[in-house]
Amino acid sequence: MSSVGQVITCKAAVAWEVNKPLVIEDVQVDPPQAGEVRIKILFTALCHTDAYTWSGKDPEGLFPCILGHEAAGIVESVGEGVAEVQSGDHVIPCYQAECKECKFCKSGKTNLCGKVRAATGVGVMMADKKSRFSINGKPIFHFMGTSTFSQYTVVHNVSVAKIAPNAPLDKVCLLGCGVPTGLGAVWNTAKVESGSIVAIFGLGTVGLAVAEGAKTAGASRVIGIDIDSRKFVTAQKFGVTEFVNPKEHDKPIQQIIVDMTDGGVDYSFECIGNVSVMRAALECCHKGWGTSVIVGVAASGQEISTRPFQLVTGRVWRGTAFGDFKSRSQVPWLVEKYMKKEIKVDEYITHNLNLAEINKAFDLMHGGDCLRCVLKM
Amino acid sequence: MSSVGQVITCKAAVAWEVNKPLVIEDVQVDPPQAGEVRIKILFTALCHTDAYTWSGKDPEGLFPCILGHEAAGIVESVGEGVAEVQSGDHVIPCYQAECKECKFCKSGKTNLCGKVRAATGVGVMMADKKSRFSINGKPIFHFMGTSTFSQYTVVHNVSVAKIAPNAPLDKVCLLGCGVPTGLGAVWNTAKVESGSIVAIFGLGTVGLAVAEGAKTAGASRVIGIDIDSRKFVTAQKFGVTEFVNPKEHDKPIQQIIVDMTDGGVDYSFECIGNVSVMRAALECCHKGWGTSVIVGVAASGQEISTRPFQLVTGRVWRGTAFGDFKSRSQVPWLVEKYMKKEIKVDEYITHNLNLAEINKAFDLMHGGDCLRCVLKM
Ligand SMILES: NC(=O)c1ccc[n+]([C@@H]2O[C@H](COP(=O)([O-])OP(=O)(O)OC[C@H]3O[C@@H](n4cnc5c(N)ncnc54)[C@H](O)[C@@H]3O)[C@@H](O)[C@H]2O)c1
Ligand SMILES: NC(=O)c1ccc[n+]([C@@H]2O[C@H](COP(=O)([O-])OP(=O)(O)OC[C@H]3O[C@@H](n4cnc5c(N)ncnc54)[C@H](O)[C@@H]3O)[C@@H](O)[C@H]2O)c1
Ligand SMILES: [Zn+2]
Ligand SMILES: [Zn+2]
Ligand SMILES: [Zn+2]
Ligand SMILES: [Zn+2]
Repeated sequence: MSSVGQVITCKAAVAWEVNKPLVIEDVQVDPPQAGEVRIKILFTALCHTDAYTWSGKDPEGLFPCILGHEAAGIVESVGEGVAEVQSGDHVIPCYQAECKECKFCKSGKTNLCGKVRAATGVGVMMADKKSRFSINGKPIFHFMGTSTFSQYTVVHNVSVAKIAPNAPLDKVCLLGCGVPTGLGAVWNTAKVESGSIVAIFGLGTVGLAVAEGAKTAGASRVIGIDIDSRKFVTAQKFGVTEFVNPKEHDKPIQQIIVDMTDGGVDYSFECIGNVSVMRAALECCHKGWGTSVIVGVAASGQEISTRPFQLVTGRVWRGTAFGDFKSRSQVPWLVEKYMKKEIKVDEYITHNLNLAEINKAFDLMHGGDCLRCVLKM
Repeated sequence: MSSVGQVITCKAAVAWEVNKPLVIEDVQVDPPQAGEVRIKILFTALCHTDAYTWSGKDPEGLFPCILGHEAAGIVESVGEGVAEVQSGDHVIPCYQAECKECKFCKSGKTNLCGKVRAATGVGVMMADKKSRFSINGKPIFHFMGTSTFSQYTVVHNVSVAKIAPNAPLDKVCLLGCGVPTGLGAVWNTAKVESGSIVAIFGLGTVGLAVAEGAKTAGASRVIGIDIDSRKFVTAQKFGVTEFVNPKEHDKPIQQIIVDMTDGGVDYSFECIGNVSVMRAALECCHKGWGTSVIVGVAASGQEISTRPFQLVTGRVWRGTAFGDFKSRSQVPWLVEKYMKKEIKVDEYITHNLNLAEINKAFDLMHGGDCLRCVLKM
């Protein structure tokens, strides 16, 4: 019997309250309305943004909700007027939408689509400002327009990238967030040139993807900075050529890097979410041209600061969201690159678990040994 | 009798101490050593950076010194090995040197030459780390490598731009600092495109030059922001199309500008030197692409700050020194542009006085009616 047009009951990990363990529940998932797509999620990874909202640090976090935004699956059915994908298509849900017609999309200057943000920002769908998830009639909020910690989810048509049907979904699910963010920070945001000296603060998945991006861009030196020295072994495989642990030095880390590089680096990337490291990342840049890109997401309310002289003397401070990749246009291209072995993906997956073990997966994520943990739904 | 090779005694305005009135003194100016140029200054204007150092806010300020860095004159004599200019050449002294051979000059990415900075930063000349100015044997420090508040000054060969001999020196002296800074902030640093919406905070000489730059770049709207509403009449002549006085609004100025522009401006420029205005200038930029350029020089020790989310969502924070113009290469080109009436200069000159009246000139500068005051030496 086809599920099309029917409410589907399936398993999902529900965040009922801030910081309380997620609970695997039977959730009712409504059929997609006009402009919507219902996806059977097959694999989802965990990202720090999930933990950030779950922890209550995100002032826009709404509970109860279904978290998750780094996943892959197959279209189950589509709502009225959806031409972009059809039932059976292999897809990656995209928390950065791409409508190709709003002011942002048409600017050619940013990947931050404005089409559905008003709805996804408050955990609902555009059409009726309501959720498609419920438990015994009680609505459960969406998250980032993706909510991939559910066996079925409903997303807007502008938030779904159709990918090659032969791509392994248990791997390419990572192309929904962390890996593209790091690669794109280098390729799209900073546009690192061959021969550049690069510093990367934080060698988690995002930092390692920055390293890989810098290596492929031809960087001459890739300096990895992490307070956990164990990170260096893996980091070398991703392109890091030198390692600095700030804990092993008395001087401020920016001074260490400036001294190592005859005046500073050409590009730096903050991949942690720590505002004082963001400052260090800017201040270790070379006078005259050094550019620092903020990738990490800081706790809400925290602020970055520096002396304006740092900028007047030529340093540039910027940031990136999803590595400035246009999601629907470019995620399929990243999948192709992975299939051609031009970018790593498998190497970021350190753990595989089932949806039922999601709380354990979060524990692993907070330990130092995990890069990405992929859950089978 | 030729002065070549001789000590010249001439009039100069000496800053003996922080904040004490400048004193017109008979100063001995040594002949230029190897790689140096002695210039007869004919006209000098006053800039806020002079007042900044004089006031004691500049931690690198050294006293007694001869201030001044916006001037024009004629080469009196040159030291050994100087091929760039010769006696009789019309020149503008440049506080941003350009040697064309240091790491900075060769990078092609910045105008901040490193060649003589170690010396000019501490008020002396490179060759012997000494000053060429003295009064009865007591050395007087140089300032910014220019010290134009003297009838004669000595500068490094990399700090002098040779200009067309028919250019009026009483006008083009302004091309030594403020006007190029504003024009270049738009043309070189921000690279404002036709159709852009621009906000300018502070409508002094620098802000007005930004307005002129924005107008010639084809900006569709140029919003001028100043706490002094009298500035608007003049500002219109320079290209400002709309005026906002923050004092006439209750909401924060960034909110006013965002509301006026459907989400923010494409480019903003801070031309005051106020760190909270620098923040407002960043935060009134459009999400996704808005770029804010810091031009104003803040009091030392003060810091800029914002939420990192401002940058992660696509805004770019940068700064400019001398509008990213390469001094020796491009100041002559700016002089040509002025001679062809392609850029304004005369319009910034609101007052003309003599060197002897320099303290009065500073008083005028601190009043609201003065843009630039040009002193005849
Ligand atoms: N801008 C975006 O679009 C985007 C997308 C995805 C993730 N992120 C953010 O990127 C950041 C990194 O994500 P991740 O998954 O790689 O995280 P992660 O926790 O796996 O990696 C962080 C690394 O930083 C190191 N670290 C912590 N404090 C440090 C310090 N003071 N100095 C040096 N190193 C330090 C840790 O040891 C760890 O190796 C997070 O803040 C995440 O929210 C942003
Ligand atoms: N980066 C560089 O290379 C460079 C070069 C030259 C000058 N500067 C700096 O540029 C700045 C401007 O120079 P200028 O000669 O135009 O100065 P100015 O004093 O003539 O102009 C400043 C203007 O800002 C206005 N203002 C003051 N506080 C304000 C506020 N809170 N909000 C809005 N407007 C406010 C004033 O009314 C005035 O019109 C100074 O800080 C100067 O040191 C920098
Ligand atoms: Zn993520
Ligand atoms: Zn869009
Ligand atoms: Zn100046
Ligand atoms: Zn140089």
